Amino acid sequence: MLKLYSFGPAANSLKPLLALHERGIPFESQFLSPAKWEQHSDWFKKINPNGQVPALEHDGKIITESTVICEYLEDVFPDSPRMRPDDLYLRAQMRIWTKWVDEYFCWCVSTIGWHRRIGPLARSLSDAEFEEQVKAIPIYEQKVKWRRAREGFPQEMLDEEMRKIAFSVKKLEARLSESPWLAGPDYTLADICNFAIANGMQMGFSELVNEADTPRLVDWINRVNERPAAKKMFAETPRERLERPPQAATA
Amino acid sequence: MLKLYSFGPAANSLKPLLALHERGIPFESQFLSPAKWEQHSDWFKKINPNGQVPALEHDGKIITESTVICEYLEDVFPDSPRMRPDDLYLRAQMRIWTKWVDEYFCWCVSTIGWHRRIGPLARSLSDAEFEEQVKAIPIYEQKVKWRRAREGFPQEMLDEEMRKIAFSVKKLEARLSESPWLAGPDYTLADICNFAIANGMQMGFSELVNEADTPRLVDWINRVNERPAAKKMFAETPRERLERPPQAATA
Repeated sequence: MLKLYSFGPAANSLKPLLALHERGIPFESQFLSPAKWEQHSDWFKKINPNGQVPALEHDGKIITESTVICEYLEDVFPDSPRMRPDDLYLRAQMRIWTKWVDEYFCWCVSTIGWHRRIGPLARSLSDAEFEEQVKAIPIYEQKVKWRRAREGFPQEMLDEEMRKIAFSVKKLEARLSESPWLAGPDYTLADICNFAIANGMQMGFSELVNEADTPRLVDWINRVNERPAAKKMFAETPRERLERPPQAATA
Repeated sequence: MLKLYSFGPAANSLKPLLALHERGIPFESQFLSPAKWEQHSDWFKKINPNGQVPALEHDGKIITESTVICEYLEDVFPDSPRMRPDDLYLRAQMRIWTKWVDEYFCWCVSTIGWHRRIGPLARSLSDAEFEEQVKAIPIYEQKVKWRRAREGFPQEMLDEEMRKIAFSVKKLEARLSESPWLAGPDYTLADICNFAIANGMQMGFSELVNEADTPRLVDWINRVNERPAAKKMFAETPRERLERPPQAATA
């Protein structure tokens, strides 16, 4: 039995969701509501004590961390269409890209996402309601992030994150100017994991990601969106899940 | 041909060095001198444009990023003694640990290491000499880190990094109280990659890592050090390399 707990097809949740669709692996999907803080609920913390999605249940065992889940799916289902290059040098390049998105790209985009979406949400609560929610968060750094979002992130931090986003966008554009996909000739986990963060930046960061400044990046985002697996994934998602979830950078 | 460029057996350089020794894979070793900023030299930036060690040269191709190199060695030499669990659930646990050290544990320890060792080194240079060195650093964040080290890291930042180190030490101690090795019953890349950062903390962070407070962690550090591969690795390293290199958290 394979069951994926996620926020739906955006941010880190998108990675294993899209990988499963691309590879045609049957699975059960359970969407959690970030607006109801379901990721911090007692029932979900029994599944992932860190209170983060995505989480994969496979034959009674739980795998966490979106990129690790994607590698696990490659290991466990080697016969499905593979999202890891057979060429081992290219596989290493793929891992450099999935590592980069987890260590750099996702965090700067996440902070701006929190600033824009979590800030208003957190401020809409009374102090007591807010503290009640924060109490349920298992990870210290996540508690701090919720408090920062509510108080407002320092401008210096927002400026630094925007600098990192601009750098990231240029890096992706440069790579996609020399290669059709991030890790070489084939579509791989490198693309899936970066698409998870980059998709939607044509709208949310249109001053950076647009046809004039980053034609290759826009084309790459479009090419992934046009794949049958991506279309199927978005089509199968309940409408209320289609908005980018607040916890853009969890797990 | 397999050639490893590294600072020697500490921090991120230790990961592939120890993995190669454990697995008995023959390789050529080239040590760079961090005191001479060799990682930022033109000749080395032709090998790794990021100016970071370790880097692996294999049949004319360059693999970077210490954890990616370790996975690459598993992929390319599957017949040597393996450092990745055959059990795929445990392999995922291994990756959660190698990811954690790269995203969390190595950074807090690195900042304190820079504060203690790079600060004095950077301040020993004239302004002109320092600027000359900074000019050669390819990565923006590394330039910032060198400047911060020279000026002195803000106390608030040092306090936060020490909090993270204390948390990390408790996390490792808790895990090693329930399991002989980090990813389960066997010694794996999870241990090698975390040992790369934890080894020496009995000295440098003795208020946190000691027989009384963290007996399991101290025992684990000793168990790795006592392995023939670790002994051989340290014995084969030129004496001047044995001090922890300054760039504790590169690559």
